[in-house]
Amino acid sequence: MPPHTVKIGLVQMAMGHGKAANVAKARRAIAEAAGRGAQIVCLPELFASPYFCQVEDPALFELAEPVPGPTTEAVAEEAKRHGVVVVTPVFEQRAAGVYHNSLVVLGPGGETLGMYRKMHIPDDPLYYEKYYFTPGDLGFVTVPTPHAALGPLICWDQWYPEAARLTALGGAQILCYPTAIGWHPKEKAEFGAAQLAAWQTIQRSHAIANGVFVAAVNRVGHEGPAGGGLDFWGHSFVADPFGVVLAEAGEGEETLVVSVDLAQQETVRRNWPFLRDRRIDAYSGITARFGAAG
Amino acid sequence: MPPHTVKIGLVQMAMGHGKAANVAKARRAIAEAAGRGAQIVCLPELFASPYFCQVEDPALFELAEPVPGPTTEAVAEEAKRHGVVVVTPVFEQRAAGVYHNSLVVLGPGGETLGMYRKMHIPDDPLYYEKYYFTPGDLGFVTVPTPHAALGPLICWDQWYPEAARLTALGGAQILCYPTAIGWHPKEKAEFGAAQLAAWQTIQRSHAIANGVFVAAVNRVGHEGPAGGGLDFWGHSFVADPFGVVLAEAGEGEETLVVSVDLAQQETVRRNWPFLRDRRIDAYSGITARFGAAG
Repeated sequence: MPPHTVKIGLVQMAMGHGKAANVAKARRAIAEAAGRGAQIVCLPELFASPYFCQVEDPALFELAEPVPGPTTEAVAEEAKRHGVVVVTPVFEQRAAGVYHNSLVVLGPGGETLGMYRKMHIPDDPLYYEKYYFTPGDLGFVTVPTPHAALGPLICWDQWYPEAARLTALGGAQILCYPTAIGWHPKEKAEFGAAQLAAWQTIQRSHAIANGVFVAAVNRVGHEGPAGGGLDFWGHSFVADPFGVVLAEAGEGEETLVVSVDLAQQETVRRNWPFLRDRRIDAYSGITARFGAAG
Repeated sequence: MPPHTVKIGLVQMAMGHGKAANVAKARRAIAEAAGRGAQIVCLPELFASPYFCQVEDPALFELAEPVPGPTTEAVAEEAKRHGVVVVTPVFEQRAAGVYHNSLVVLGPGGETLGMYRKMHIPDDPLYYEKYYFTPGDLGFVTVPTPHAALGPLICWDQWYPEAARLTALGGAQILCYPTAIGWHPKEKAEFGAAQLAAWQTIQRSHAIANGVFVAAVNRVGHEGPAGGGLDFWGHSFVADPFGVVLAEAGEGEETLVVSVDLAQQETVRRNWPFLRDRRIDAYSGITARFGAAG
């Protein structure tokens, strides 16, 4: 198979309190990534604001906006300026009292190519997302772009093999996970390394199980009170369809630009034909909450 | 939660051509593991013979036997002598022309506690299993034992998140994968490290996604013609419910005895409550062969 190279840009950034400043920073990073040859640029989850889900405060719903809205329009302008695809997370207000943790895939003309609403919503100390976000109702989607079929998912989704599988079955070549994950400072010494390793392992496993590329884009920086809050751990990375990490960021602000050869998907799946042997006659128990499958 | 410690023995062995000698070697290893405190002992896939699936030869069906049969009876005797549970793979003849790649879980009194027939059957160069094995029809099973609820799976199953998920939903605390996986000698230099890493990564991911222990038990040694054949890579291991490798064997014969604390399952699942947030309303597309989910 002839190579089919695509360049992906991962914007690993720290967020401040002003939405305008965060959006401006993201636009500069898109421009930088495009300048370095990126054709598809991914921004982190809820990149326009701090990770506000550390508290439950009704005033914070003010951060939400419609889609399309100011944030997607600003990013669309930048996408069009550079002719790139941009995976653009947004805190979406869909209706009065109906909010989602969403993303829009913007095309190289600034047009909307597709949308995804986070399906799996966490709720854990300092990640109080069930308060803010209605679970997504668009299902798992694959978005055709001029460069690759993208499978967008968001953060907590990354712990669910079902999400990766269903997106890959939809034809995605690259799973893209905008993320906001970090350490509780008090846990970091004891559990930090295992948490980061688990996060990377589960996502590499989606690449392997499905024969797809995986791009994970996290934020960085400390948010919240000193000694408390969250240390967002960065480590954005791209894995190939056999789970090999092609590039990985550190724990500071950084824009990774990574070349991937989409032809590798065929090579890997031909040698490790997992999709061929799925026992679709025996998987219906996956829709059970718990309990023995028939 | 008070600790609940269970000791698992993993028999990583090389096989010769005589079935009696392989079974005798396995019995010695069971005795050794029991002597070191193991309560549950796992043998490798098809441990009673070389990995005969390197060729398609109708004469090799002679290696099969009924269940119960000589191999399970011999192992049951050893299980009873030492009062241990033994996961006992067997090339099962079920009826004329109907063969399975199976395993029996034998109890500490030598009794049969459960049975599993390999669900996912590979067919790749030197792994011609579709010729020999009818796909399993027992589904994914959890076998209660006096020490833990075991979820037995076999080799190629380990690449399927659905298999791990369905077994975990059935209540398994420990997934156990008897395995026969190795390198093609000519590929080893270029791809060997990535293949081993992928094999370990996908299984660690099952531990993480499901909050279960995972025990993988591989064979070792070269089988087949010099320069060809397969180098079975060993590296049997046990991972905890967050994917941390607790112990790992090398590439030679070795019996690992590993203590696991089953109470850790509750701790890990409480902190990383992935089962809580599954979108069972949106997973039905898992039973499709390919194509976009609804």
